[in-house]
Amino acid sequence: MLTFLTIGGGYGNSNCTTRRCLAETLINRNYSSQPQNEDCTQIIKVPFIEYQTLSVDTKNLRLIVRLQARIEWKDLELKWDKSVYQYDTVVLPVNKIWTPELHVTNGILTTMKHNSHDLLVYSNGTVKHMVIINAEVNCEVNLFNYPFAADECPVAIQAWSIDGCGTELVLGTVKMVDSTHGDWQTDDVKLQKKRDDRNYIMVSLSIKYLNPFLTLMLPSILLILTDVVSFALPLGGGERNSFKVTLVLSFTMFLIILNDKLPGDSDCSPIIRPHFCICLALLVLSMLVSLVLTRVAKDGGLIFCCMSKGPTCGSTENKEEKEDEEAKADVPVTQLDASDSQILRKVVYFLESLDAKELKIEKCQEFANTVDKIFFWCYFTFCIIYFCVMTGVMLKYQCDVDHFDFWY
Amino acid sequence: MLTFLTIGGGYGNSNCTTRRCLAETLINRNYSSQPQNEDCTQIIKVPFIEYQTLSVDTKNLRLIVRLQARIEWKDLELKWDKSVYQYDTVVLPVNKIWTPELHVTNGILTTMKHNSHDLLVYSNGTVKHMVIINAEVNCEVNLFNYPFAADECPVAIQAWSIDGCGTELVLGTVKMVDSTHGDWQTDDVKLQKKRDDRNYIMVSLSIKYLNPFLTLMLPSILLILTDVVSFALPLGGGERNSFKVTLVLSFTMFLIILNDKLPGDSDCSPIIRPHFCICLALLVLSMLVSLVLTRVAKDGGLIFCCMSKGPTCGSTENKEEKEDEEAKADVPVTQLDASDSQILRKVVYFLESLDAKELKIEKCQEFANTVDKIFFWCYFTFCIIYFCVMTGVMLKYQCDVDHFDFWY
Amino acid sequence: MLTFLTIGGGYGNSNCTTRRCLAETLINRNYSSQPQNEDCTQIIKVPFIEYQTLSVDTKNLRLIVRLQARIEWKDLELKWDKSVYQYDTVVLPVNKIWTPELHVTNGILTTMKHNSHDLLVYSNGTVKHMVIINAEVNCEVNLFNYPFAADECPVAIQAWSIDGCGTELVLGTVKMVDSTHGDWQTDDVKLQKKRDDRNYIMVSLSIKYLNPFLTLMLPSILLILTDVVSFALPLGGGERNSFKVTLVLSFTMFLIILNDKLPGDSDCSPIIRPHFCICLALLVLSMLVSLVLTRVAKDGGLIFCCMSKGPTCGSTENKEEKEDEEAKADVPVTQLDASDSQILRKVVYFLESLDAKELKIEKCQEFANTVDKIFFWCYFTFCIIYFCVMTGVMLKYQCDVDHFDFWY
Amino acid sequence: MLTFLTIGGGYGNSNCTTRRCLAETLINRNYSSQPQNEDCTQIIKVPFIEYQTLSVDTKNLRLIVRLQARIEWKDLELKWDKSVYQYDTVVLPVNKIWTPELHVTNGILTTMKHNSHDLLVYSNGTVKHMVIINAEVNCEVNLFNYPFAADECPVAIQAWSIDGCGTELVLGTVKMVDSTHGDWQTDDVKLQKKRDDRNYIMVSLSIKYLNPFLTLMLPSILLILTDVVSFALPLGGGERNSFKVTLVLSFTMFLIILNDKLPGDSDCSPIIRPHFCICLALLVLSMLVSLVLTRVAKDGGLIFCCMSKGPTCGSTENKEEKEDEEAKADVPVTQLDASDSQILRKVVYFLESLDAKELKIEKCQEFANTVDKIFFWCYFTFCIIYFCVMTGVMLKYQCDVDHFDFWY
Amino acid sequence: MLTFLTIGGGYGNSNCTTRRCLAETLINRNYSSQPQNEDCTQIIKVPFIEYQTLSVDTKNLRLIVRLQARIEWKDLELKWDKSVYQYDTVVLPVNKIWTPELHVTNGILTTMKHNSHDLLVYSNGTVKHMVIINAEVNCEVNLFNYPFAADECPVAIQAWSIDGCGTELVLGTVKMVDSTHGDWQTDDVKLQKKRDDRNYIMVSLSIKYLNPFLTLMLPSILLILTDVVSFALPLGGGERNSFKVTLVLSFTMFLIILNDKLPGDSDCSPIIRPHFCICLALLVLSMLVSLVLTRVAKDGGLIFCCMSKGPTCGSTENKEEKEDEEAKADVPVTQLDASDSQILRKVVYFLESLDAKELKIEKCQEFANTVDKIFFWCYFTFCIIYFCVMTGVMLKYQCDVDHFDFWY
Repeated sequence: MLTFLTIGGGYGNSNCTTRRCLAETLINRNYSSQPQNEDCTQIIKVPFIEYQTLSVDTKNLRLIVRLQARIEWKDLELKWDKSVYQYDTVVLPVNKIWTPELHVTNGILTTMKHNSHDLLVYSNGTVKHMVIINAEVNCEVNLFNYPFAADECPVAIQAWSIDGCGTELVLGTVKMVDSTHGDWQTDDVKLQKKRDDRNYIMVSLSIKYLNPFLTLMLPSILLILTDVVSFALPLGGGERNSFKVTLVLSFTMFLIILNDKLPGDSDCSPIIRPHFCICLALLVLSMLVSLVLTRVAKDGGLIFCCMSKGPTCGSTENKEEKEDEEAKADVPVTQLDASDSQILRKVVYFLESLDAKELKIEKCQEFANTVDKIFFWCYFTFCIIYFCVMTGVMLKYQCDVDHFDFWY
Repeated sequence: MLTFLTIGGGYGNSNCTTRRCLAETLINRNYSSQPQNEDCTQIIKVPFIEYQTLSVDTKNLRLIVRLQARIEWKDLELKWDKSVYQYDTVVLPVNKIWTPELHVTNGILTTMKHNSHDLLVYSNGTVKHMVIINAEVNCEVNLFNYPFAADECPVAIQAWSIDGCGTELVLGTVKMVDSTHGDWQTDDVKLQKKRDDRNYIMVSLSIKYLNPFLTLMLPSILLILTDVVSFALPLGGGERNSFKVTLVLSFTMFLIILNDKLPGDSDCSPIIRPHFCICLALLVLSMLVSLVLTRVAKDGGLIFCCMSKGPTCGSTENKEEKEDEEAKADVPVTQLDASDSQILRKVVYFLESLDAKELKIEKCQEFANTVDKIFFWCYFTFCIIYFCVMTGVMLKYQCDVDHFDFWY
Repeated sequence: MLTFLTIGGGYGNSNCTTRRCLAETLINRNYSSQPQNEDCTQIIKVPFIEYQTLSVDTKNLRLIVRLQARIEWKDLELKWDKSVYQYDTVVLPVNKIWTPELHVTNGILTTMKHNSHDLLVYSNGTVKHMVIINAEVNCEVNLFNYPFAADECPVAIQAWSIDGCGTELVLGTVKMVDSTHGDWQTDDVKLQKKRDDRNYIMVSLSIKYLNPFLTLMLPSILLILTDVVSFALPLGGGERNSFKVTLVLSFTMFLIILNDKLPGDSDCSPIIRPHFCICLALLVLSMLVSLVLTRVAKDGGLIFCCMSKGPTCGSTENKEEKEDEEAKADVPVTQLDASDSQILRKVVYFLESLDAKELKIEKCQEFANTVDKIFFWCYFTFCIIYFCVMTGVMLKYQCDVDHFDFWY
Repeated sequence: MLTFLTIGGGYGNSNCTTRRCLAETLINRNYSSQPQNEDCTQIIKVPFIEYQTLSVDTKNLRLIVRLQARIEWKDLELKWDKSVYQYDTVVLPVNKIWTPELHVTNGILTTMKHNSHDLLVYSNGTVKHMVIINAEVNCEVNLFNYPFAADECPVAIQAWSIDGCGTELVLGTVKMVDSTHGDWQTDDVKLQKKRDDRNYIMVSLSIKYLNPFLTLMLPSILLILTDVVSFALPLGGGERNSFKVTLVLSFTMFLIILNDKLPGDSDCSPIIRPHFCICLALLVLSMLVSLVLTRVAKDGGLIFCCMSKGPTCGSTENKEEKEDEEAKADVPVTQLDASDSQILRKVVYFLESLDAKELKIEKCQEFANTVDKIFFWCYFTFCIIYFCVMTGVMLKYQCDVDHFDFWY
Repeated sequence: MLTFLTIGGGYGNSNCTTRRCLAETLINRNYSSQPQNEDCTQIIKVPFIEYQTLSVDTKNLRLIVRLQARIEWKDLELKWDKSVYQYDTVVLPVNKIWTPELHVTNGILTTMKHNSHDLLVYSNGTVKHMVIINAEVNCEVNLFNYPFAADECPVAIQAWSIDGCGTELVLGTVKMVDSTHGDWQTDDVKLQKKRDDRNYIMVSLSIKYLNPFLTLMLPSILLILTDVVSFALPLGGGERNSFKVTLVLSFTMFLIILNDKLPGDSDCSPIIRPHFCICLALLVLSMLVSLVLTRVAKDGGLIFCCMSKGPTCGSTENKEEKEDEEAKADVPVTQLDASDSQILRKVVYFLESLDAKELKIEKCQEFANTVDKIFFWCYFTFCIIYFCVMTGVMLKYQCDVDHFDFWY
């Protein structure tokens, strides 16, 4: 390289005082280590940060952000004598000089990239540059009140420093851009600090509740409502059971699909998960009661009690009785010379037994209907109370998460 | 390296005037900083840009584009004396000299790659090169009229510049290629500028409405239509309720599936989401009314009112009456010597009570049918009006989004 | 480095004539620019290309290919005097010398990688190397006849060249390997050229129709067939409506699922999409007609006409008539001294009115059945004709796409 | 470079004793090989490791971890004379000196990144640095008791060493952060060693059982319960079969969906998979029995036995008998001058045959009901026993996996 | 650099004989080309390979493997005089010397990474190192017997070599680790060779059939079984049709879901795909027959024949006949002075016509039942035979694939 300074194009030429020559001269000073003062520390000014929430991963409780930061620092080895080179500024390629690093302390994945291949150096050694930081930040968002959740996440911004050596940040202002993408809304960002060297951007997030309400809450409410109203269906016709099993199976299907959409667990697990469990239990209970009452309405008893003795409203003894009567009535008919009235009486017996049978069934049905009504009112009352309480808890209860556990 | 200049192959040889020697000589000038004039700025010409929309992420409102740009600039340190090297042009490897950078200002992710490892240098120092830019641009597409949405997105193209130093772009023409891939159609691209240093490509996008119409709108229309026509089903048979619950559950399933396909929220949230909510509400309402009317048609009252006093069309008092008559009629039969006519009268009583029961039920059914008809006409009218209004709003209403908020 | 030539291991030693020394000597010539003759161009021979289709992205109309190309070129600066180094060949590391680049002109993403870290140089300066190109090529496959689609895609292979400077390709043969992976089959590949510098590999692709036929066509055909045969179900029993609504909802579900599998739009949009729309319309129409006819079969009219005056086959006037008769008949019974014959007549009246009612209903049903039969035959004929026409169009119609629009 | 030492900015200047000059002097010593003592080994201290479980891939049995390790080592070539440079510490760029590597021995993918571009060097040659390791560790988690699974996974941490040469680790303490993300909970981490050079972090993991219990176990339990209770539905009405087929199909659907969520196989395959198979078999068995009993209840036999001879409760011989009686009865009626009593007897015959037919059907039904009851009690008992046993096995059985098979 | 040798820290110092100095001396020999003997080839020993199957992509027929290989070679330029440096071994950074490359010839994507940044050099020039190869290998696994598939895949391992120059591999032993992850089990690995320079690892794979059997085969078997048993349902009640349509639609849904899970096509396409098609066809056929027989059972004919002349068992002529009788019977009733016997006869007529109508319907039903039984036995027999044959083919048939077509 010595060679080129003498043989080469010209920047080694001491007469050359163009900006380009200045740039090459500075580059050739070839300093690759951090500017370090006597106190082994270097101040990096970050006058302006542009903050953007790229997305919020509700499943893994991650916040993906993009920061665009202007940085300024002083590198005394890059200053020049303005009497030799009469320029205020010079453009240098970024990979030829030392540049500072910004860290996102609570970031799982952080990449810092230079915004441009070139940066600007002032004659007093001040360097102005711009960097872009993409970070995936661990943030245990409080999701207790899930579709109505809102929380604050810190994005800790620090510079490298160890045993008092390193760099020190002086942050300026932060500006949020493009706040409304995706499921979460970024309400506010502000710079705060815990300690002198612990700066962070406090990001206020709130979920857009329309979407999860529509896909998670609304179906559950509608299904429970439909289940309650489905008691209006007659017990006997068999229609109610198939109606209710459809509801239960739909809800189970929902549960499986929805579980994928539900946010992940953290210290504040969303209350919506037990809510769904309780809804499912209610639906199944209501269906099982309907199934059993259908049998009661028909037989006056349950299949479960094999020997249904006692005051049942069954039709078995009735049948025997009828057969007795028929046995008596059969005699004249087989004689074939019985009087008309006996024949007529036989018709009457037939009609009467039909009627009696119907009457017994009606009694069973009435009993089942009464039980059904009682159960309905209990169920209805419980559902009303439950939904009121659940809505209250979901909207009002506050669950607190410590977001600063990474600074132990 | 000095060594090789004397011992090595030959390019250091001052007699060597081949293109290759010229190239190596230029490379060995080893300038790594930006060419910078007295005014600290460098003009980069971009005579031609080939624009291609790779995809539009409707969920996250991102536009993924690919730009292929020809760039030209002047680097005086790369010019040569044509009397020494008698060539107009020489090919240089791209990583040995300084090359400019193009930025997509509103790009979330931008990568600029050299189209080739080599570039062309002219004897006057003009450098011709080609770069490929892949960018993911933030564009809050107006999705209010969702399946019929169309909007314009700016792709801002700038060069690095700070405090008056840097590079300045002079853009030429832009040409769109391959406009019809995917869900969105690129209708037009044109170069525009907001300020001297704020160039952008204005991309006109319109959604291909066939697909979303087919998967989002058509099922909703068909389900509502089927729901309206399903009033033709008889109220009593129990068929209508299971029909309607199938419709409601299908629609809820749709809602969950479709919500994944619905575009994300922005300032102009798509009107199709509330539309689906209203459709679901209509279906549920219609089903609940059917459920209740089924009970009315059977009992003449509702399960909700335990003590159904007053002018009901129920069958309970009828039953008691019948039992009275039977009680009276039973006497002669038990005497066993009653006349035939009494027996016959008993048959008549039986038939009459059957008839009367049927009559009462028919009255109840008639009442329920009348209510059903009234509800049907209200429902039908509301649906017609609603769909007209919704179609009008979806097609006509204009929602404006400011696409230039990144230049605050 | 000068130092090592004298102090170091030996290759700087002029006595050293081993292969290794030759290699290091060539490396140390340190030429990083393209070999360029007087005409500023360099010929690159590509004697053999191994072509492999990795996959075809039917959704985005992309062809992902892998090319393994042998390349040869001459670099005069790498030749050596065989009297000094008596070897024909020497192995050099690939990153120490200039290597050419191959471009896939119509590739969205192209990466060229060296197959090995070393390459072979012959004493006359010929360099033999092998590169692997992975490219994602934009190819608007003609998908009009979708499950039976077949088309040709060009993979344009060019070298860098600008203003007459650069490299020029001389292609040899191309060989296809592993042709049958995935949904598409690569039938043939051949080298063609449009212009001297516009070489391309023409890839003949055809879809394996079994899979899409099974998942897309077969269900549509079976559902329509089942819908046609479902006219065999009795109109009155209520079974047909629930049967048909199941079919319609299943088909709508299909449509949503299938739409994800359907290929993306291009100039030749697949005909299968309108086909599915028409199928859905047919199913819905058939269901709506069934719904309406069910009502007609029961009431002899429609719920839509509130005041069903005129020659209806309804049962309302019949009921009044019956009540009249009963009113008359009621008188003797309440007198209680009526003759037996009157009582018997009452029985007959009852049976007759039952019969008459049944008769009226039968008339209504007969009318509905006739309309149903007429509709069935129309529907059946239309379906037959439609499927014939659609199959013809799908198999025969040719839709042409210009695959060379990237060379404008 | 010699040139710059004399002409350049100053650090070559022997008078320069600033930190920056010290740094550049150390950098220029330019040692790129590992510090190696006489025993060819180098001790690396790792005083502190921050452990974080990023996720557990239950499907592929992988553990994705992130380790942040402080490392310290001694590089004698980096020490300086404090009488010349009076500083204790100096900051050096990390890519200019040798740094050690940490390996995760059982990691499929391991990336070690420097936490910062700079590191701290003490005057005695001690270097302090921090590295971040992202590793995907192969861990055959014992998933036998799946929704209640808990296991320990080793994350083996070693340094490079071969034939006694290399580096040796001295580990300090490990601290777990952020233990509750995702489906798995990290209960504990501790440092252990198998041999002097075989250090590992033992990670205790336990699954959060709520989610898989809700989506996998609960539906299976509810479906079996509903199936058991559905025996309450009457056999004859046809309702039970459609109820049961809905259950079976839902369960099959579940099985397909759930199979995607089930963890992958390992030596300890989850017992939940055969459990689901048995549940499906039970449901199908119960449905098939219902189907067959429906036929028995109607015909008193099965379609399978074409010639149903013997003591069946069928209605065919009954019909013939009736026809005989009718044949006899028909005679007087056709004569038209028969007595009233004959006519009446005909009525009685009609009613009696109706009654007899009903009686026979009732007998068949009674037989079917008895079989149904017996089957129900067997089925019920088996389900109870099965669920008890399965719960016991799932909660109690221990399956052992050797997690250290990578150290063979 | 010359400068540092004299001014710098010490390794240039000829007195320095530490390991570190030896290392730096070797590094500074700066050989970047392959060690090449007179025969232009270099032997690379691979004494040990650790093989691991990461996954098998059944869809795209790819085998993703990870190889960890110990390699040894001799680089004479790295040997040293043990009288000067009295060490046997020295540790060198891997990027300062030449290292060989291993290729996976049939790999689509292959990445070779150094296991460590350092390697060990012996005084005789032997170098010991370890590399990790991740490769995605193209392997057309024979999937004909899909859920019971087993096959062998070669992973070809070669070194770079062209025109007799390059490197030559000498392989030692291969050891398989972690054989049971994922859907496939690696049964065995062994080193084989086709030619002297064509080494490959033969990997025996077998699918774990439990999972695909559960999700693919079991549902198909259960659905067909249920379909066969569903013939036990009575034809007339309308229950069977809705039962069968549920089965068919479920199966179609399966087919769509399952098709995603089915492996991709290769020369040996899985027999399970046509199997599913045939199952679907069987189900549809059985359903269509049921639909038609339902109509036959009711009307004694088909809707398809508009003019159902001939010996039908229909009820239309019966109705006319009845009307005639009623016309005759109506006369006395309207006269109102008819005798009681005429009235009674009327009753008898009514009952008789009812009976006759029922009888006719019963004849139709009997005919339909007979056809149903015949079809059932044919269907049953065919299913039994089909499943036996299919199971035999699936388990026994061998389909051969040439796995070495990449070595053409």
